[in-house]
Amino acid sequence: MVILGIDPGLATVGYGVINQDGDKLTVLDYGIIETPKNETIPVRLKMVYDGINYLVEKYKPDSVAVEELFYFKNAKTIIQVSQARGVIVLALIEKCGRIYEYTPLQIKQALTGYGRAEKGQIQFMVRTMLNLKTDPKPDDAADALAVAVTHAQTNTQLMHSEY
Amino acid sequence: MVILGIDPGLATVGYGVINQDGDKLTVLDYGIIETPKNETIPVRLKMVYDGINYLVEKYKPDSVAVEELFYFKNAKTIIQVSQARGVIVLALIEKCGRIYEYTPLQIKQALTGYGRAEKGQIQFMVRTMLNLKTDPKPDDAADALAVAVTHAQTNTQLMHSEY
Repeated sequence: MVILGIDPGLATVGYGVINQDGDKLTVLDYGIIETPKNETIPVRLKMVYDGINYLVEKYKPDSVAVEELFYFKNAKTIIQVSQARGVIVLALIEKCGRIYEYTPLQIKQALTGYGRAEKGQIQFMVRTMLNLKTDPKPDDAADALAVAVTHAQTNTQLMHSEY
Repeated sequence: MVILGIDPGLATVGYGVINQDGDKLTVLDYGIIETPKNETIPVRLKMVYDGINYLVEKYKPDSVAVEELFYFKNAKTIIQVSQARGVIVLALIEKCGRIYEYTPLQIKQALTGYGRAEKGQIQFMVRTMLNLKTDPKPDDAADALAVAVTHAQTNTQLMHSEY
């Protein structure tokens, strides 16, 4: 089963694509969609939308998981990131039908069992669970892989709980 | 020239469609797109997107104007409204190519010459400039008409300044 994880943003959207075969997880791809700061917001939103559509068409994920936004101190940042998240969710609902959403707290708990885990612990768990030799970079791509792995974990628990 | 004004939201999107012929403004339509609270956010975002596409296809506006968001105290509200604004802007940039954006302050100044005008003054000016017998309702539709009229005003000033 192919899982696409997304870490939303306007300047940088992180994505991670993994395959789940029983308990075995493997990385298919990860990276970022970047939008240039000198473009208008509407044009950048369209770039994000097109980038997500491209990923969905390329990897045809069975499940898509997107990180929920949490409170930012800067209102301008949260407006821009939320606008970008809106077009990401739209692209995914149009193409994939159902979207799984995880809060930063849920991601930390799924990966480390501890809601206040540090970023380093999350990266360590992602690297270990995906059998990567080094930490995936940049951070937004690593965060997106964490979302995908969280979904794989949650999914496995759901399947097991049906016995 | 047909102008579509939009007051963004997730539960309710206001829209106003006016025609500008020189200094003469007339209303073509106004109203709201509503999304049901018992639906998921992704589905509601898709409804907003489809609603905007419907309006653009129906009225084929020459210009589109969208109100900018300002700071809300409630982080959850601003995330949801911003996500909706993202899909609105996406639909408009895909179909109309250019989007004009006005802050609440710019709208107040354009309509009343006073940045701290009360809502009642705005409604009075919208009603007067559009020759309406009563205040347009609901409020979100009135706000969208205010955005459209602001664009008409700004537009006229731009044209005059080219002499």
